[in-house]
Order: sequence, then structure tokens, then C-alpha cells
Amino acid sequence: MKPGLLIVLSGPAGVGKGSIVRRMMELSDRVVLSVSATSRPPRPGEKEGVNYFFRSREQFEEMINNDELIEWVEYCGNFYGTPRKFVVDEIKKGNIVILEIEVKGALNVKRLFPDSVLCFILPPDFEELEKRLRGRATEDEDTIIKRLNRAKEEFQVIDKYDYIILNDTIDSAAKRFMSIVESEQMRTHRNKEFIDKFKNV
Amino acid sequence: MKPGLLIVLSGPAGVGKGSIVRRMMELSDRVVLSVSATSRPPRPGEKEGVNYFFRSREQFEEMINNDELIEWVEYCGNFYGTPRKFVVDEIKKGNIVILEIEVKGALNVKRLFPDSVLCFILPPDFEELEKRLRGRATEDEDTIIKRLNRAKEEFQVIDKYDYIILNDTIDSAAKRFMSIVESEQMRTHRNKEFIDKFKNV
Repeated sequence: MKPGLLIVLSGPAGVGKGSIVRRMMELSDRVVLSVSATSRPPRPGEKEGVNYFFRSREQFEEMINNDELIEWVEYCGNFYGTPRKFVVDEIKKGNIVILEIEVKGALNVKRLFPDSVLCFILPPDFEELEKRLRGRATEDEDTIIKRLNRAKEEFQVIDKYDYIILNDTIDSAAKRFMSIVESEQMRTHRNKEFIDKFKNV
Repeated sequence: MKPGLLIVLSGPAGVGKGSIVRRMMELSDRVVLSVSATSRPPRPGEKEGVNYFFRSREQFEEMINNDELIEWVEYCGNFYGTPRKFVVDEIKKGNIVILEIEVKGALNVKRLFPDSVLCFILPPDFEELEKRLRGRATEDEDTIIKRLNRAKEEFQVIDKYDYIILNDTIDSAAKRFMSIVESEQMRTHRNKEFIDKFKNV
């Protein structure tokens, strides 16, 4: 009754994706975060293998050529991608794998894994997003403007996602997210074995 | 962020549908039960307007002719149907309307209201169902056998439902059910207005 799941999580920079995922991992030890590979340089405090696998452009291109990535995109001048093996192994174990990726990558994953669940995190309103992004203070003004404009672009494809999750507080958002996980695990198409037991009584 | 919902709940006789719905209504005052009309005679303790609207065959046929029912079926020699007005009004208010109906009616509702959510309640196993049904002691042996055979028939179409809900304990089942309600309310297609606010920033 507890099938593994691939959950794709997107949302504008500053909306609180990282905090929600951390809270999710505190709530359930079956929630695991897929670590992306990227060619962008680490931000202060970011750790190899925790936040990202940091690779050179050349190394990244080699991963692409070896088909080691589920999906990859070039975004703001850098490569981002999802290593395949980790995701496949964890789903088989019955775990909830979360991919935190931007919209283009998310739609690619949905195409390749129609069973994946696409969630888009939204702030209560746009002003709140701007406030949170400036409050983070890790980027300069140019980057902030770039990210806000990028957010407006991303909003245009929200309809292609399965769910929106409102992030008013981290706790509420994490609980909403857990409801989605729990209910997706009850989908008939994910429980064929259990259902077959009854069909064959 | 809290759109109204039409939830169709099915499951074999004896699985505990009634108890789960009562617990749901204790958990949230936005959960309302649609009362069906039927031409079958009341069981001991059943109340007009609470368990069913009890009607004669002639009265029931008049409701059909006046298009006052969302769906209706003839099942074990009796008519069962869902009065339309109550359902439509409650969804508009943003409430969670639960229809507790058998599979043929459920699939009819899904056809007419593609936005409705179909949930099928299952016991841990078939033996448990038989035990619960005999424990209820409101039916004679013939009726029990008839209901168990009917259950086996219903199991064949579970795949057409959206979700299965395991009823191991009433509390757990009601919580699972609430997860489905909460997550369905976060579906992108039910939140067009909220999403449009962001698309039009």
C-alpha cells in the first residue's frame, strides 16, 4: 500500500523550496532528495553532494553523452541535471524521491516518467516573493531582478503541473505536501497488486 | 485555495463506508453527505432524510422523469439515485460533498462530472469483509451471500476509480480520506483563479 513516488518540485527562487523539503525529510524518513548536478559555481555555504554535485562544463557534457542524466537544462548560462541511477534505485525501494528542478526540466521529467507528480510552490502573492528573495541577501540586485523576471516566465506554465502548494508557513506547506504524497500513494494505478488480490478472490 | 469537491465513495457492503463518512464529518464541518433517494424499504433504525429519502417506485420514476437526479440505478431490485440540487448547491458553497453510491452509479457520475473524485474503500482482505458483514447482523444469510457475490463483481471495476482507501481502522481510513480531499483541493485545474493572479503579475 506504500508505493515509491517521484515528486518534482518547482517554484520561483525565494519561495522556500529548500526549507519545505528539509521539513518533509524531518517528517518522514522515506522522503529523499535527489541531488542535482550543475556546472554553476557553488554559493557560499553550499556543499558538494549535499546541495549539488558541482561539475565543470566538460564533465557535465560527458554525463550527458553517457546518458547518466534523466533530464538536463541550460539555465542562466549554467547546466543543471538529474543523475538517473539514484532516482530509479530509491523509487524501487518504495521511497519518495523529490527532484527540486525548474519548469523546463520538470516538464521533461513528466514526459519521460508520466507517473511522476509535478508540484509548484507558490507564495501568498508576488510581493511576498520579492520580499523573501531580497531578505535572502545572497544575490546582488541584478540577479534578483533576473530571478523575479524568470519567476514571471515560470508562472505561465503552472497549469501543466499537477498541484500547487501554497507556502504561507513552512509547516503548513510541508503538511500540504505530505497530503499529496499520501494521496498519490493511494491512486489505483499505483496499487495494482493489492487490487488484483481482490479481483481474484 | 479551498474549492468545493464532489467525492464519490464506493466499497462493498460491510466495509465501513458509513462509519468513515461519520468520522469525516466530525473532522471537518465542510464535509457534507448527499442523501440518496431509494425505493427500497427502510432497515430497522434508518431514518427518512438521514439515511435515505424513502420513496415508492412510482414516486422514484417521477423524479427520474423530472430530471431531478444526477444518476440513478436499479440494484438488487430497488432504485437508488442522487438528488441533483443539493449536490450542486453545496459544491458552489465550497463544501466537500460525499456521495456514497455503488459502482454503476459512481461511473455514471464520473461521466457527467469528470471533476468528481472516485474513491473505493477496501478492507485489509476478503475474509475480514465477510467477518464484518456477518458481525453487522442486520441481514439474513441469503442477503449476506448476495452482498459478498456483489462485492466480487464490484472489485472488477476498481481500476476505474481514482483512489483506493484501506479501511484497517476507521480513524486511519478517515485520515487517508482527508489527505485525498486536501490534495485534490490543491490540483492546478481547481485553482485557476489563484494561478491567474500570478500569470498576470
